[in-house]
Amino acid sequence: MEKSLKSIEVCFSPANLKYYNNISEKNIVVIDILRATTAICNAFNNGVKEMIPIAKIEDISIFKQNGYIIAGERDGQKLENADIGNSPFNFTPEIVKDKTIVISTTNGTQAIEYAKESKNIIIGSFINITAVSDWLIKQDENIILLCAGWKNKFNLEDTIYAGAVIEQLMNREKYQINCDSAMASLDLWSIAKENLLQYIEKASHRNRLKKMNLDDIIEFCFTKDICDIVPILKGNKIISATKI
Amino acid sequence: MEKSLKSIEVCFSPANLKYYNNISEKNIVVIDILRATTAICNAFNNGVKEMIPIAKIEDISIFKQNGYIIAGERDGQKLENADIGNSPFNFTPEIVKDKTIVISTTNGTQAIEYAKESKNIIIGSFINITAVSDWLIKQDENIILLCAGWKNKFNLEDTIYAGAVIEQLMNREKYQINCDSAMASLDLWSIAKENLLQYIEKASHRNRLKKMNLDDIIEFCFTKDICDIVPILKGNKIISATKI
Repeated sequence: MEKSLKSIEVCFSPANLKYYNNISEKNIVVIDILRATTAICNAFNNGVKEMIPIAKIEDISIFKQNGYIIAGERDGQKLENADIGNSPFNFTPEIVKDKTIVISTTNGTQAIEYAKESKNIIIGSFINITAVSDWLIKQDENIILLCAGWKNKFNLEDTIYAGAVIEQLMNREKYQINCDSAMASLDLWSIAKENLLQYIEKASHRNRLKKMNLDDIIEFCFTKDICDIVPILKGNKIISATKI
Repeated sequence: MEKSLKSIEVCFSPANLKYYNNISEKNIVVIDILRATTAICNAFNNGVKEMIPIAKIEDISIFKQNGYIIAGERDGQKLENADIGNSPFNFTPEIVKDKTIVISTTNGTQAIEYAKESKNIIIGSFINITAVSDWLIKQDENIILLCAGWKNKFNLEDTIYAGAVIEQLMNREKYQINCDSAMASLDLWSIAKENLLQYIEKASHRNRLKKMNLDDIIEFCFTKDICDIVPILKGNKIISATKI
């Protein structure tokens, strides 16, 4: 019997997810390439036990009081009451191995919050892109690639990542795409991939990070397949999907 | 003295306009290529006196009772209590010349409603694209190109039009672009313009219209510069900007 085609949609802004149908039956990939989801993936690559994503700043203090390591960022800067910011390079084995880390960022952890009604939420970045595609194919469900964007506005880096995932999926399985933002993502990726680091020079958040001298992570954030872990939300915690 | 650079932003969904700053100081171009804004521009090309955009269906009946001609559409279909739908071909000189037409559509007139806090709202389509660019340059204000999309979701046809306007503006004046969706629009337009009608074959709304046998207007909707009128909202009415 022929397998039924699954759909791939892309949502450019967490606030727009409410306009998508049947969320509870779909797997969502949360994407915040600069820098939250790359940081989460790198934390798992460096042995973190689990991570607790927190959307609201005011919810951090209770975890702080209970001795958790806090990764916190707003507008690119480390939060005052946080131990580390959201640079992927902060999540070293020395800091994260076998630990539970609480993380709260400008866009990425908000996107996770918006996506909570979905079937599953996984964390996508270039550093685990093939693992993400493999996991999606194995699950065989309809998919929404959710770009965290910048304060609910479209951004380029999350969009081209969505395009890159779609390219991988289409190369290996048949999916049906009836979503203009998925088609746009694929087209933008087709331009960007010719010279990814040059393309991303024009992205507004890349320039925001440059101004704050926080752009040392750019090359890392656009490097494919550094690890093969798929972080997944279970309850209120992100764990490694390969361990369940 | 060197002229200060004006900004161009693109908003992919009316619901996201609230995330943009200083709306009241910006000129907004409302874009609903398939078909509302193309229809409005064609109505002015065929001599309509003025048009009254209505977002809510329930507001139509009072105008109907008062003898206005009603153009009404939802999900591609003419509304039952409307005289005509929103195909540009409905707005013939015989029907519209020197008349006041009330118009209510799925996306276009909603977008006008969302944009009401802006400095000016004008109506953009391929059939008046150069007139739109000329008007924007003459006004010399910051610009938001507002894509009506489809029920607050991104669509391709409005986005590539935004890219086409940006290309015209950048060719003739210096603008500053620090908006990822403007850059994406320009990139998508650079792909689409090579063969516009072929590119738009994949757009979901183009296919929605095809299924309803409403796609006779596709070629017309992607034809540049059929007229040189810029429809503009003044109070609750759209009039020709060239007449004020």
